[in-house]
Amino acid sequence: METIKIIKIGGNIINDELALDDFLVHFSQLKGTKILVHGGGNTATSLAEKMKVPVKKIDGRRITDSDTLDIITMVYAGKINKHIIAKLQSLQCNAVGFTGADGNTIISDKRPVKAIDYGFVGDIKKVETTTLQLLLNAGITPVFCAITHNEKGQLLNTNADTIASELAIAFAKTHTSELYYCFEKKGVLESLENEDSVIESINTSSWEVLKKQGVISEGMLPKLQNCFNALNQQVAKICIGKPAMLYKKDELYTTITNN
Amino acid sequence: METIKIIKIGGNIINDELALDDFLVHFSQLKGTKILVHGGGNTATSLAEKMKVPVKKIDGRRITDSDTLDIITMVYAGKINKHIIAKLQSLQCNAVGFTGADGNTIISDKRPVKAIDYGFVGDIKKVETTTLQLLLNAGITPVFCAITHNEKGQLLNTNADTIASELAIAFAKTHTSELYYCFEKKGVLESLENEDSVIESINTSSWEVLKKQGVISEGMLPKLQNCFNALNQQVAKICIGKPAMLYKKDELYTTITNN
Repeated sequence: METIKIIKIGGNIINDELALDDFLVHFSQLKGTKILVHGGGNTATSLAEKMKVPVKKIDGRRITDSDTLDIITMVYAGKINKHIIAKLQSLQCNAVGFTGADGNTIISDKRPVKAIDYGFVGDIKKVETTTLQLLLNAGITPVFCAITHNEKGQLLNTNADTIASELAIAFAKTHTSELYYCFEKKGVLESLENEDSVIESINTSSWEVLKKQGVISEGMLPKLQNCFNALNQQVAKICIGKPAMLYKKDELYTTITNN
Repeated sequence: METIKIIKIGGNIINDELALDDFLVHFSQLKGTKILVHGGGNTATSLAEKMKVPVKKIDGRRITDSDTLDIITMVYAGKINKHIIAKLQSLQCNAVGFTGADGNTIISDKRPVKAIDYGFVGDIKKVETTTLQLLLNAGITPVFCAITHNEKGQLLNTNADTIASELAIAFAKTHTSELYYCFEKKGVLESLENEDSVIESINTSSWEVLKKQGVISEGMLPKLQNCFNALNQQVAKICIGKPAMLYKKDELYTTITNN
């Protein structure tokens, strides 16, 4: 089976234009079939401030109301996604930008209202790879922002980590699927104070131990949940670390494995 | 040869959510291969006001500085384009949004600085239909906003009428290419005071007469120039009118012809 790399870059890269452009140079040089998924960074927050749209939170959780969804759509699908596409084209990497609405690729349900109404937030229901496969076969790289839709005309703000893992899972049916979460740390750390305390490998049982010990911090829990979801659904390789793990030989990073 | 319809909708439809949604219902029902091109409407201007980005003009011509390009990218490629894509998906019309950077489909040169520096404005140099053809063959409808790129990483604000005519010209090599300019009037009018004074047919020689007589108003001149460019480059059918010309049998509209 052909290998496909699903690579997600987080806010720390998006927020830093030089870091982003440097990443894109390396990304464009990666051999083989690949898909890029990007988060939003802090551009949406600063646009909301400029537009005087208040950031709504309930119990510390951000709420996507209609104005916020507009801002997210403008920043993620407009400004950031098209900057990335234009840059990749200049690096001879032919790319096409996607939300989950484009090509009907990622269908979500609006998150049901329980204790909290999160607003226009999507929980992924289905990934449709046909259109993506068509482009990948032609050597074109899809670039996803963190927006999906519900097939009823509604765009939905959707977690970028989950978009990446669900894409990796969907492609695992036809490819040797590899999932890479690039962020600001070298991997999952034994101690947040020590940048080099990278846990090089985590499996289901060591994860349980790490959780009990409280080693894995709150923000990392959903990311690792996405990793184990992918692991349990035939994704062949799952890595967390700095972007350099993709191209630097001696770079430390965390691998999520069965053993 | 297969027929392809390149349909451009203007600001008056984009500005009116009900009119846009109504148009998209009809557009989704059009048989055969089609591409939609949309302008920006006044959303970009109102966002610029909210963000306190001044609209820069020289001699009445709008200048696209870096902040304005950001706004245009957010509004055209983000908010408007993704609204259209999500709506079309809800109407079972599988669509993918494009700027000229996506798939490297439309390459422009930044307009040279002469008397006026227009800023980040693109003059189209080349249209590359390969990626579009791939999607069209799979029954997918590309939806273009009015942004292109220069292959060097720079996005460029580009006239939507010209994008439509250049797409129609590029497809004329492989298709019976039809170009439709939908706007707020029933066509080119004999008298602006009389909405029904539609000139049903204009050819090269009658155009020269109309120009001399001053019948064709300033705003219509570049639109008609695009029409005649298309006519001279094998575009088979060129129409100007209300969107209803696409689906209503007795609708009046203007046709640009050789005879």
